[in-house]
Amino acid sequence: MSAKHIHVKPIEWVGGKVRFLDQTLLPEKEMYVETDDVNIIAEAIRRLAIRGAPLIGIAAAYGTALSMNSIPFGQHAERSTYFENIISLLSHTRPTAVNLFWSLQRLRKVFHQHLGDPLDALQKSLLAEALAIHQEDEVMCKKIGEYGARLLPDGSSVLTHCNTGRLATGGIGTALGVIETAWELRKLSHVYIDETRPLLQGSRLTAWELGMLNIPATLLVDSAAGFLMQSGRVTAVIVGADRIAANGDAANKIGTYALAVLAKYHHVPFYIAAPSSTMDFGIPSGDAITIEQRAGSEVSPFFDSLLSQQGIDVDNPAFDVTPHELISAIITEHGAVERPSKESLAELRSKLSEPSAKTSAGALS
Amino acid sequence: MSAKHIHVKPIEWVGGKVRFLDQTLLPEKEMYVETDDVNIIAEAIRRLAIRGAPLIGIAAAYGTALSMNSIPFGQHAERSTYFENIISLLSHTRPTAVNLFWSLQRLRKVFHQHLGDPLDALQKSLLAEALAIHQEDEVMCKKIGEYGARLLPDGSSVLTHCNTGRLATGGIGTALGVIETAWELRKLSHVYIDETRPLLQGSRLTAWELGMLNIPATLLVDSAAGFLMQSGRVTAVIVGADRIAANGDAANKIGTYALAVLAKYHHVPFYIAAPSSTMDFGIPSGDAITIEQRAGSEVSPFFDSLLSQQGIDVDNPAFDVTPHELISAIITEHGAVERPSKESLAELRSKLSEPSAKTSAGALS
Repeated sequence: MSAKHIHVKPIEWVGGKVRFLDQTLLPEKEMYVETDDVNIIAEAIRRLAIRGAPLIGIAAAYGTALSMNSIPFGQHAERSTYFENIISLLSHTRPTAVNLFWSLQRLRKVFHQHLGDPLDALQKSLLAEALAIHQEDEVMCKKIGEYGARLLPDGSSVLTHCNTGRLATGGIGTALGVIETAWELRKLSHVYIDETRPLLQGSRLTAWELGMLNIPATLLVDSAAGFLMQSGRVTAVIVGADRIAANGDAANKIGTYALAVLAKYHHVPFYIAAPSSTMDFGIPSGDAITIEQRAGSEVSPFFDSLLSQQGIDVDNPAFDVTPHELISAIITEHGAVERPSKESLAELRSKLSEPSAKTSAGALS
Repeated sequence: MSAKHIHVKPIEWVGGKVRFLDQTLLPEKEMYVETDDVNIIAEAIRRLAIRGAPLIGIAAAYGTALSMNSIPFGQHAERSTYFENIISLLSHTRPTAVNLFWSLQRLRKVFHQHLGDPLDALQKSLLAEALAIHQEDEVMCKKIGEYGARLLPDGSSVLTHCNTGRLATGGIGTALGVIETAWELRKLSHVYIDETRPLLQGSRLTAWELGMLNIPATLLVDSAAGFLMQSGRVTAVIVGADRIAANGDAANKIGTYALAVLAKYHHVPFYIAAPSSTMDFGIPSGDAITIEQRAGSEVSPFFDSLLSQQGIDVDNPAFDVTPHELISAIITEHGAVERPSKESLAELRSKLSEPSAKTSAGALS
C-alpha cells in the first residue's frame, strides 16, 4: 500500500458537525464520532481520544466554531462572556501543548473582529479560521517532512517515540512526516518505535500508521532504547514536541528527555520536528512549562486496587522537558534550526508572520 | 507490618517435593505449585514462574535433586547419561543468568562424588547440596544488604529496576536486600520503582514486596527515570545482575544499561548488588554474554494479531549489558568493589573458596 492510499482523517468538519476518530480504541477499532457539541470535543481532548499537539489545536478551533450553535442571541457583552467560557473550557483540557492556546488565540481574534456580524456569519468566520488552521498544519507537515529528510543521510535508521503522524496532526505528521518523506526519498532503512508507556501511542498508533505505509519498523519497550543505541542500530532519534520555549527547551512525551541523554552519550543526533505553532516565545526556558500529571491508573490499570491497598503511590508525569543543549536541531516548516538557542531561534521568531498572535498558556488560562 | 512478619517463600523443599510460588500470577493471586517432577521445574523457569538469577540457581538445584526420583537403576554410565540429560534440560531454560550454570556445576560435582552410592543416598547428597545453595544464598543476601547499606548516606532516595527481593533469591534479596537493610537502619527516605516492561516485575513484584514491608515507594514507567533523575529526586540507583564478567561488565534486565547512562549523566551513583555466584570469571567482558531474546508477544499481547497482520516486527531483548565504567560499585557478600575492573575484581576472585567450580555457560550447554 503506498502512502497515497492512506486516508486517515483524525478530524474533519462534515455538514456542520465535527467528525473525529476515537484514538483510544486504536488499533483494535477504527471508530468515528460525529458531534455538534463543543463539550464532546473538550472531553475527547481530555481523555486523549483526540491527541497530538497540532491536532489538539485543530480540534479546539473546530470546537470553538461548533460552540456558535448554542451562542445566545443578545448583546455583545453577553456573547463575549459565553465565548470566553468556551475558550476557558477548551484551554483547561490539557496544560502542556501550546498549540491549543495558540489556536484559541487565533479564534478569539476572529471572534472579536466579527462580533457585530449576524450569528451565522460569525460562525462562518470562525469555521473559516479553523479550516485555515487545519490546512496550514497540513502544509507545515509537508514542509517539516522535506526539511527534516534533508538532515538524514542515506541508509538512516531512526528511533521515534510516541505518535507524531497523521493521527497527531492535520497532515502527514511532524517527526513521522520526516520519516515518511525520508522513506519516499529512499533515505531510510528502518524505523524503531518505542512502545511509549503508559498509553502505548507507539505500539498502538505509530506501529499502525507505519504498517499502513509499509515502512519497515520494529517495536520495542521504552527501556530497550539505550541497548539499541549501544548496539549501533540507531543513526538518528526524531520526536515531536508539545511546547518549545524561546531558548529551544522542548516539552514532549515522557521519556523524550531520557532518549536525548542517551543519544548524546552515543553521539547519535537528536531531532525535534514540530510546526512553529509549537513555539512559545512567551516563556524563556523549559522551567516555565507546566508538566501534566495524569492518573496513576494509567500506569497500573490491572493492579490498581491491589497497589492502592498496599499504599503504593504512582508518579505519572505525561511529559518531560529536554534542554536545548541536547537537541541537534529543531525542524519547523521554516527549516531546521541547528543547535537551537535563544539566539538561533530569534531568526525563526522574526519569520513568523504574526508574532503578536502568539501567547503563552498563562495569558489564556 | 514489620519485615519480620514477611514469610514469602518463593521455593522450598517440603516432604520430598518442591513447592514454588507461581510468580506470573502475582500480585493478583498467591498460588503455590507442588511437584516431584523436574520437568515442571524446568518449565517454571522457562515461563518465569520462577525467576530472579539467584532463585533460578536454587530452583535448578532442587530440580536436580527431584530428578533422582526417576533415575534408572543400572550402570554408572547409564546413570551419568540420564544425569547429563537433566543438566542439559535445566541449563537450556534461560541463557543469561550464570547462577543457573554455577549451581548445576555444583550439583554435577556432588553427583560424580556419590555416583557409587545407593540411589536414596545419592539423592540425599544432591538435596543436601541444593539446601546448602539455598541457605548460602540467604546468608549472602544478608551480607549484601549490610555492605550495600553502608554505601548509602542518610536520607537516601533510591531508584530500582525489576525485582531483586525475596521473590528473586533465597533471602531478603540483592538490590532490594540493600534497600530493606538501609530502611531498617533509617538511612532511606524513599524508593522509586521502574515498572519494568514488558513483564512488569517492578509493578507486579517489587511494589508488592515493598508494600508488605511498608517501605514508602513510588511506581513509575521506565521512561520516566530520566525525568526523575533530572528533578534531583534520586540519590542512588541500585539494581541486581544476572551475570557479571571478569572485568565487571554486568548483564541485567533490559533497561539497566539506559539507567546506568542516565545515572552517569546526572552524577548519581549506580550500584550492582549480586551474590558472588553471579560472577562469571570465565568470560573476560560483557561481549561474551548471551542476551536472551524473548517472544514479541510479551511486548504486544493485546495487539499481537493486528501488529503481525501489519508486519510489525518486535525486538524483545530480556537483558542488556552495562559496561563496568558505568558502575560505581559491585556489592557482593564479600563487600563492595568500587569502580569494578578486571584488576579490582581479581581480589574478589581470590576470596571465592572454589574458583575451579566456577564455569561459564559454554562449559555446560
